[in-house]
Amino acid sequence: MNLKVLFHINEARRWQMVFTNITNFINDVGPGNAAIEVVANGEAVTIFADNSDHGLLLEEMQKLAKRGVEFMVCRNALRSQAIDEGNLPSFIKVVPAGITEIARKQVEGYAYIKP
Amino acid sequence: MNLKVLFHINEARRWQMVFTNITNFINDVGPGNAAIEVVANGEAVTIFADNSDHGLLLEEMQKLAKRGVEFMVCRNALRSQAIDEGNLPSFIKVVPAGITEIARKQVEGYAYIKP
Amino acid sequence: MNLKVLFHINEARRWQMVFTNITNFINDVGPGNAAIEVVANGEAVTIFADNSDHGLLLEEMQKLAKRGVEFMVCRNALRSQAIDEGNLPSFIKVVPAGITEIARKQVEGYAYIKP
Repeated sequence: MNLKVLFHINEARRWQMVFTNITNFINDVGPGNAAIEVVANGEAVTIFADNSDHGLLLEEMQKLAKRGVEFMVCRNALRSQAIDEGNLPSFIKVVPAGITEIARKQVEGYAYIKP
Repeated sequence: MNLKVLFHINEARRWQMVFTNITNFINDVGPGNAAIEVVANGEAVTIFADNSDHGLLLEEMQKLAKRGVEFMVCRNALRSQAIDEGNLPSFIKVVPAGITEIARKQVEGYAYIKP
Repeated sequence: MNLKVLFHINEARRWQMVFTNITNFINDVGPGNAAIEVVANGEAVTIFADNSDHGLLLEEMQKLAKRGVEFMVCRNALRSQAIDEGNLPSFIKVVPAGITEIARKQVEGYAYIKP
């Protein structure tokens, strides 16, 4: 089994749930047995704002990135929230439009999950 | 690329997010390069109630309909909210059950997105 | 037509919506014409807590189970909420990780719906 899963998040309050879901998923299928991508758009990107009080969440995000989870952020959402791309952690990738990324990944066989 | 995307909305407060998502998506892939459908069920259909204060949202919906976005509304939800189908904007299509429409579109290769 | 649909629920307040969606769906396609599975994780599993005041919802769930709807509950979520598996209704199946179940079902051709 090599599952491919895309997690969609558009609300900042759901980041912890996303991380818990991913951690449980990796523990269940085993490291390296799944391709996991997170696409963040809408208000979820405020976790990257300068005045964000989400240091612990960003640490958890980084740990998952080191385990191979890919984190994609919507450029439209960043602009809408006035967040400078230069301030993003280095493991974050910016995509022009989050919706396009979500649609393309489903075409590539990724399962869609909205925690 | 000719992406097919279905947006599912069941909460009225999320209409603006749906419209923003769709607009960003069309701007990204280019007009005519994607098939886009919105299925509304549950409380989301209250946007069509007589006493709804959602005129600006309905204008935005109509603009997207003119750009080719299809809007489908669940008949069960309309009945549950006591909304007369005759009052719906002419570009809206009513389906017997929103869930059936969502399932069928995924079978047809539409990506599912829940803003 | 033999549609396969997976409903994902992770918030207890959405159980009624899930049941309504499923009932409308069965009424639309006809009994026996769809495979329906519900996967519950996160806070949604509190419906099974001892002190839960959700007797009517559990009755509705049982009625749907008798009509062939499968209900799967995430073990991680049960542990997180300190809910004893022995207290679950007999028609409930426990899976090691809800996310894995959701991903696998989509690979099997199930449409994903998040009410």
